[in-house]
Amino acid sequence: MFKSFLELVICLRSFSFPGISTLIAKGAYEAAFPLHDVSVRFEIPTRCPLILHEEWARYGVFYKYQPIDLVRKYFGEKVGLYFAWLGVYTQLLIPASIVGIIVFGYGVATVDADIPSLEMCDDRLNFTMCPLCDGACDFWQLSTACGTARASHLFDNPATVFFAVFMSLWAVLFLEHWKRRQISLNFSWDLTGIEEDEVHEHPRPKYETILLQKRQRKKNKKKKKNELTWKDRLPGYFINISSILFMFGLTFSVVFSVVIYRITVSALMAMSSDPEIKSNVRVTVTATAVIISLVVILILDEIYGSVAAWLTELEIPKTDTSFEERLVLKAFLLKFMNAYAPIFYVAFFKGRFAGRPGQYMYVFNHYRMEECAPGGCLIELCIQLSIIMLGKQLIQNNIFEIGIPKLKKLVRALKNKGTVEKEKEEEKAPQQWNLDYPLAAFEGLTPEYMEMIIQFGFVSLFVASFPLAPVFALLNNVIEIRLDAKKFVTELRRPVAARAKDIGIWYDILSGMGKFAVIINAFVISFTSDFIPRLVYQYMYSPTGTMHGFINHTLSYFNVSSLKPGTLPSNSMLGEVMVCRYKDYREPPWSPNAYQFSKDYWCVLAARLAFVILFQNLVMFLSHVVAWVIPDVPKTIMEQLKREKKLLVDVFLREEKEKFQLIQSLFAKENALQSEWPSNYTNTSSAFLHYQYQTVY
Amino acid sequence: MFKSFLELVICLRSFSFPGISTLIAKGAYEAAFPLHDVSVRFEIPTRCPLILHEEWARYGVFYKYQPIDLVRKYFGEKVGLYFAWLGVYTQLLIPASIVGIIVFGYGVATVDADIPSLEMCDDRLNFTMCPLCDGACDFWQLSTACGTARASHLFDNPATVFFAVFMSLWAVLFLEHWKRRQISLNFSWDLTGIEEDEVHEHPRPKYETILLQKRQRKKNKKKKKNELTWKDRLPGYFINISSILFMFGLTFSVVFSVVIYRITVSALMAMSSDPEIKSNVRVTVTATAVIISLVVILILDEIYGSVAAWLTELEIPKTDTSFEERLVLKAFLLKFMNAYAPIFYVAFFKGRFAGRPGQYMYVFNHYRMEECAPGGCLIELCIQLSIIMLGKQLIQNNIFEIGIPKLKKLVRALKNKGTVEKEKEEEKAPQQWNLDYPLAAFEGLTPEYMEMIIQFGFVSLFVASFPLAPVFALLNNVIEIRLDAKKFVTELRRPVAARAKDIGIWYDILSGMGKFAVIINAFVISFTSDFIPRLVYQYMYSPTGTMHGFINHTLSYFNVSSLKPGTLPSNSMLGEVMVCRYKDYREPPWSPNAYQFSKDYWCVLAARLAFVILFQNLVMFLSHVVAWVIPDVPKTIMEQLKREKKLLVDVFLREEKEKFQLIQSLFAKENALQSEWPSNYTNTSSAFLHYQYQTVY
Repeated sequence: MFKSFLELVICLRSFSFPGISTLIAKGAYEAAFPLHDVSVRFEIPTRCPLILHEEWARYGVFYKYQPIDLVRKYFGEKVGLYFAWLGVYTQLLIPASIVGIIVFGYGVATVDADIPSLEMCDDRLNFTMCPLCDGACDFWQLSTACGTARASHLFDNPATVFFAVFMSLWAVLFLEHWKRRQISLNFSWDLTGIEEDEVHEHPRPKYETILLQKRQRKKNKKKKKNELTWKDRLPGYFINISSILFMFGLTFSVVFSVVIYRITVSALMAMSSDPEIKSNVRVTVTATAVIISLVVILILDEIYGSVAAWLTELEIPKTDTSFEERLVLKAFLLKFMNAYAPIFYVAFFKGRFAGRPGQYMYVFNHYRMEECAPGGCLIELCIQLSIIMLGKQLIQNNIFEIGIPKLKKLVRALKNKGTVEKEKEEEKAPQQWNLDYPLAAFEGLTPEYMEMIIQFGFVSLFVASFPLAPVFALLNNVIEIRLDAKKFVTELRRPVAARAKDIGIWYDILSGMGKFAVIINAFVISFTSDFIPRLVYQYMYSPTGTMHGFINHTLSYFNVSSLKPGTLPSNSMLGEVMVCRYKDYREPPWSPNAYQFSKDYWCVLAARLAFVILFQNLVMFLSHVVAWVIPDVPKTIMEQLKREKKLLVDVFLREEKEKFQLIQSLFAKENALQSEWPSNYTNTSSAFLHYQYQTVY
Repeated sequence: MFKSFLELVICLRSFSFPGISTLIAKGAYEAAFPLHDVSVRFEIPTRCPLILHEEWARYGVFYKYQPIDLVRKYFGEKVGLYFAWLGVYTQLLIPASIVGIIVFGYGVATVDADIPSLEMCDDRLNFTMCPLCDGACDFWQLSTACGTARASHLFDNPATVFFAVFMSLWAVLFLEHWKRRQISLNFSWDLTGIEEDEVHEHPRPKYETILLQKRQRKKNKKKKKNELTWKDRLPGYFINISSILFMFGLTFSVVFSVVIYRITVSALMAMSSDPEIKSNVRVTVTATAVIISLVVILILDEIYGSVAAWLTELEIPKTDTSFEERLVLKAFLLKFMNAYAPIFYVAFFKGRFAGRPGQYMYVFNHYRMEECAPGGCLIELCIQLSIIMLGKQLIQNNIFEIGIPKLKKLVRALKNKGTVEKEKEEEKAPQQWNLDYPLAAFEGLTPEYMEMIIQFGFVSLFVASFPLAPVFALLNNVIEIRLDAKKFVTELRRPVAARAKDIGIWYDILSGMGKFAVIINAFVISFTSDFIPRLVYQYMYSPTGTMHGFINHTLSYFNVSSLKPGTLPSNSMLGEVMVCRYKDYREPPWSPNAYQFSKDYWCVLAARLAFVILFQNLVMFLSHVVAWVIPDVPKTIMEQLKREKKLLVDVFLREEKEKFQLIQSLFAKENALQSEWPSNYTNTSSAFLHYQYQTVY
């Protein structure tokens, strides 16, 4: 009943608004916003902005907890929850990044003891590798790839496997921890027992207008419609699906064209006579390619954001809640694809379709499909990840979150200069609304959350290949919190305080990602890294039970004479080469079925798949256990609630008792004059009690 | 607030009891139970038993829905929920069993078109198989195993794969459906908003006594303890863990000893001279073995049940709720292990450790480990499953649920004869308590649920190998419902009506099983059945792209000459055999590394593992989608709740208004005489309102 009582308050509050919002939508007003509050004269709530300035929106206080309650008091629950969530996330990134650093340290420490990379760097056992491109490229010594081999060991070592498990559990822990925090916030903010049900929500102006038009159309027919049916939305849905598919296609084609770029440019550079260019083909190509895809990602990110909004408008959702949900889902899908497509390519597809010497895959029938670096794909994946993650964060933070708002503000300020000046002349302090007007309008928390979620993806999805991701995420977020705080306090108009119990759909997206991360990491470890082949070699093939001879085991033989004419290197520096090696498990030329996948191939494949099953089920089981062990409601809150319930019952009973005493005494004193109210009073009171039994609330 | 109000009622109700239960525990009373109600004079609730007799507890009405509301009225919410759940489960078994029958029918229809079984039955291509036991057994023709091959096709065909997916989704659907039903029952039974919190629950007598003892012990030290700490429970926990481990060991050893039985007996029978015995070794051995394990399972089932109860007592749980939960978990673990251990053995371990000709595994160094039937392990698994499932159901239903209670009743009736007779003589109708006393006491719903959960396991866990399981489950449950109904109405004393919102821990167990079933079925399909090897053969090895030659492909060659001396059949009927075949993927004798696993082996293994990954993730994804699509709260209920909330607010406001009118009018009329109560009244009322804001409930 209190619940309902409070809800009444909410619904009244929310009703007070749409009128204006409709008018704005119709263009009658230009803007409507609560004023920022800078007076220091009154009590706490009004002193907020100053405190917020000092205690919250300064980089100086990055090490402090945020004054969440003040934030909530000033900006409303919804914003408060966002910052609370961001805080919890950042806080939990600390242990993750510590472990990450340790794991990386382990890699650094053991790099000199790692036999495979030592063998790769050893010139004495000279593996003559088959040329990396047709004609132009020469045979090459594996020992020249020593660098990448050592580098890849930093990320491709047993510790990363442990780290992948750790991070999967970390994700679960994070979600559970947030649940608890959310509940205690709900409790201390008096949100327990509120449901945002859409009945109380006012339909969006867009929806109303369209409904109106429909009504007018339908007038001739007698039946009145108060709802938009799926019929009205059908065209919208069609456009939605088709354009989403189109944008998926766009993303994929971008990835593919970057691949083509890499292939062609490297081929061309290889053909050039200048040894200077030849020497650092791979570096230049990789670098440029990554930067290109980064730029494309950033551009598409913005485009997709606005497209998603446009598409959601077409769906004509009834309330703001549903609008937001649909928008978020779309935007997330698109941006997720956009950010991760190139990474998925490198992780799982690059080099898988390269074919084998004498039978390479060709695109545009004279460019060979690219292969991974000799050190394995993991190192490339790592480079890709780090550059995209860092680049995205730096650029988005600096340009899109600081630069552009400042610009907009400047522009508006110039537009608005007149009024302020005039007031200046009239010797009175500039009015608050004039000060606030130039600020950017508050456009919801979606972009803020989205940025963090995508980052969460970098931290969880491919963490097996880049243990330092949490560290960078942590550094970013420590700044991000204060950056957003500054933005909210100084750059944006004060948002309309909105109530919210939880972070809504974002939670589902987070937990979904957590689940997805498990399987992705399993595949990264078993297929992208060399972890499994090493195990298999050590325990099945190695004569000594050590890793000695691993490199030799991973390289197959190829008979140069069976290379297609023209693809043979014109003049080899290594003299007359009869047999070259390539990284694959295939039968040697002298076996009956030459160049077919060897037994080892199938054996390793089986091991990899077995590992995926083991890893996935183990981690899933563990995370279930973790989620089951940690109670959702903190013990203290639980007891608090119980105590309150008890008190409530007492109050209620005392209250009832006294009411009846009151009535009795009335009757006792006043049975003389027959006023009608006691009877009617008792009626209602009985009706009231009647309700208590009928509806349990 | 209503919530709290109702809760008050509950707690009062629950408080009214323990006094008696303590006295019973102390032995002051012998029994205390509500009387059954057979008078027809009054209104609905009292007319229940007769209606229940006619409409519910008769096999005649098996096709009707149960009168759940009456059941709840008469037996209380907890029992009502059990029968509602049983109803939903049984109802949802109908589609499952229809699909199951279709799948089975597909198997029957396609058995004559199945090339592998045709090839096995074909005498012309004669595969001389290696002997199944040392010395005594002769070489044999594969075509003699024609029968099992055809039989196994009935369950081992592509349709079963589809069925496994279907059943996994069915399990999710079932849980979702139950959630909805539960919520609507909660609503129509006025249970919404009740939490069973243990504060209101009275501690169990056992707990109290022990606490008392402890207090007395502690008296000399000044600090009083009102709680039992983990220290007091430690010994209990120790005994728990150790004895649970012991019972696990027991179960496993039982399984193993059955295996030994099979091995030895079959060896002995094979040695016997009588051809009659020799011919049907496998049948007799398998049959007897299964029956033995069935009997053992049934016995252990009873034992474990009582042991679990005893162990839980040792833990000294505080309240009945926690007692029940701990009991259920233990009992479930033990009974689950007990029921499924032999099945798991057949499914995943039997025949995997048999070794290969010339290098067999031996137990007690002269008994060869058993192998699966030539038709594959699946058929044996199927036999095992069906016999255990059916046997368990039939015997438990008939003996433990009908027989024993009747016996007990008889005994008590004889004991109680005196009183009734005496009353007879005194010409008055026998008193209800005398009629009810001989009935068996109500011992909670745990056994009822347990039986169903174990059955659910048969329906979900190994459904891939036995598509008819749902059918048998359905048949059983149709009877089960009425059987339990009869028991509750006629065989048991009327249970104390207990309130419950949901089926508690059972739901978690069910959903856990659902998740477990996915991975189990994946493994059954890929490792126990021949599904994957067939696919691999058809798409990788078959020259014609058909299944022709599959059998030949699955059989490896063995050079008889390299058999250990003495293991060679003494006088073979097949004349001089040089090379015999055996079912495995190994290199032929003439290859350089003879008898090692061949490339095919690893290839098939990889395919199997890949299938597991694919199946598991696909099904998990689908079930997430299903669970996400189906809303937990039915739309109608949702609207109902909203309407009620609205009404409630109105009533509350009117109520408040009138109360204040009342006060005002009072002041208006009575400001003459200064009675003290209005002031105090207003105080409390304000205090009351104050609470409304402070605690949102």
